Amino acid sequence: MDQFRVLEVKRSIFEDNDRDAERLREQLKGEKTFLINLMSSPGAGKTTTLTKTIAALKDEMKIGIMEADIDSDVDAHTISEAGVKVIQLHTGGMCHLDADMTRQGIRELGTKELDLVVLENVGNLVCPAEFDTGAAKNVMILSVPEGHDKPLKYPLIFQVCDVLIINKIDVLPYFDFDLDKVKEYALMRNPNLKIFPISAKTGEGMEEWENWLREEVKQHNA
Amino acid sequence: MDQFRVLEVKRSIFEDNDRDAERLREQLKGEKTFLINLMSSPGAGKTTTLTKTIAALKDEMKIGIMEADIDSDVDAHTISEAGVKVIQLHTGGMCHLDADMTRQGIRELGTKELDLVVLENVGNLVCPAEFDTGAAKNVMILSVPEGHDKPLKYPLIFQVCDVLIINKIDVLPYFDFDLDKVKEYALMRNPNLKIFPISAKTGEGMEEWENWLREEVKQHNA
Repeated sequence: MDQFRVLEVKRSIFEDNDRDAERLREQLKGEKTFLINLMSSPGAGKTTTLTKTIAALKDEMKIGIMEADIDSDVDAHTISEAGVKVIQLHTGGMCHLDADMTRQGIRELGTKELDLVVLENVGNLVCPAEFDTGAAKNVMILSVPEGHDKPLKYPLIFQVCDVLIINKIDVLPYFDFDLDKVKEYALMRNPNLKIFPISAKTGEGMEEWENWLREEVKQHNA
Repeated sequence: MDQFRVLEVKRSIFEDNDRDAERLREQLKGEKTFLINLMSSPGAGKTTTLTKTIAALKDEMKIGIMEADIDSDVDAHTISEAGVKVIQLHTGGMCHLDADMTRQGIRELGTKELDLVVLENVGNLVCPAEFDTGAAKNVMILSVPEGHDKPLKYPLIFQVCDVLIINKIDVLPYFDFDLDKVKEYALMRNPNLKIFPISAKTGEGMEEWENWLREEVKQHNA
């Protein structure tokens, strides 16, 4: 049997999500829990990247994962095999999570003992970017097959993210994807963006990303 | 100079989008214009598939394209080179188009002389599926790199579509993508779904899809 619960999260009752997100961020800072909001298109490799990241870090810190999906449990099943605390959040058709929905997940997960929580947001480059979840950092994954023009077409998500992971670099030879161009476009949107080209499949580049994450958790929870 | 206009579409004033969509569908039937609503994730290949489809059909019928994007013109620039009537719709941050937004585009495009209009919806598997645009048929593209579990995770879009195009089959050897499984999952969601595996890049499978489209346009506009 899988080791996770399924929670149907309710739409926020708060009018002011930004203020509510700020409140949650402060609460988690106080509890020494580093929350990451992980966003991408469907199929960019959120779950695979997460599974590999967990494997690298789970002996150093206590990790919890919140899997948000419209109504499936596929990712929670996969992640629960990685041996960390997992909860499945069902948004009931909604395309994003706001701060209060995130809080409902956090409460159910019980973060007080966790050093790092990753919220795997609904797969979508538009709506999740519009709502502050209260996470300490926003991270997005763009995968090579999606094309290097995405920062031009989905500006907001590149603006609100702290980290851009470029995944599936192992298939670069088979796609017309210009790594220099995507970096240039992404930095146009957000000059402070950290960019990590990786292949979650082969492991290439994972260490740089994991080192960044390790350092951020340490600083945040100090 | 590019041959297209940019239209900022406004949120619908109609409460009842389903009824409004029905009205638009009837209007287009009367005008003998076959409207397709094309949906997919970002980077699944909507624009490339469309460019190739246009090249195959443009000598047989008059085609118009409406490119919906949050705020870029990238796809309209590409499509305008294919030599058909193109208009760019900007949704102003919204993640989908409803029937009235579609009508605003249709009006600007001037469909009375067009046999086929393709609405390239905002790249997203969630929100566009929730709003009937008034199109005669809904078509979605899923690409191989996105993974075969997508019908499990995004049920609604598979339910509302008439056609599932599985794109990028040329890269099947490089991904863990099970073509039989994705068909099985998709048909579980919608037993009436027509499925066309294609590679817009190499042209494989395009003829079956184009034949289907040709036949549908003929029947609709008869």
